Amino acid sequence: MEPISLEAALASFSQQWSPRIVTAVNDYDVRVAKVEGEHLWHAHAHTDEFFLVLSGELHIGLREPDGERTVILPRGSVFTVPRGIEHKPYAPVPTEILLFEPTGTLTVGDRHEEVPDHVDATTGHTLT
Amino acid sequence: MEPISLEAALASFSQQWSPRIVTAVNDYDVRVAKVEGEHLWHAHAHTDEFFLVLSGELHIGLREPDGERTVILPRGSVFTVPRGIEHKPYAPVPTEILLFEPTGTLTVGDRHEEVPDHVDATTGHTLT
Repeated sequence: MEPISLEAALASFSQQWSPRIVTAVNDYDVRVAKVEGEHLWHAHAHTDEFFLVLSGELHIGLREPDGERTVILPRGSVFTVPRGIEHKPYAPVPTEILLFEPTGTLTVGDRHEEVPDHVDATTGHTLT
Repeated sequence: MEPISLEAALASFSQQWSPRIVTAVNDYDVRVAKVEGEHLWHAHAHTDEFFLVLSGELHIGLREPDGERTVILPRGSVFTVPRGIEHKPYAPVPTEILLFEPTGTLTVGDRHEEVPDHVDATTGHTLT
């Protein structure tokens, strides 16, 4: 096992909304993704989901018990979406993110609206 | 819960080798730390440990079954130390790192050499 450059990892693919697994930590994955535009409303019933913005800017719509709001993550900021909370990521510009979540977590969650063509419903791809 | 700027989190303290918990993901912590100079040889018997270098450069000495080596992590690179592997972080310049590990993981592991005064043996401090 050798260190992995996130820049090199991100340069190795171009598909958006299609995370690559850079390393595992016990039964969790560290994934990176390129994103732009809208993801979809979805929720993970059994796990929190961690976001770190490496470049660009990520907005995350949240449907919380007391209403809907959007959090804005500039480059270098982090946010954890709590389990069970419906959320919808959106990137106004080309954006790179790092995710930390249990291995096997599906990008579209356990319940979700219809998956648009530009979103990859996956548990993450291996880096090549 | 609001997004957290890693830059602001890192600006809120100055102690080295003394991680701050920025957020939790299920029963894992995301921690940030400022480091420079030598940590100590230690091992976590029951967990992997993830490192991301936010600034500076981190070296990690590893005592693997087939010998000792050092991996070098420039800014923007990641590495997971497998559970049970003795390791010793070292930063040749002032360096900022992000860590993912189970909540309650001790900075000096379950077995370690004598803890020097400049190293904080902690499970991570709350951001203030």
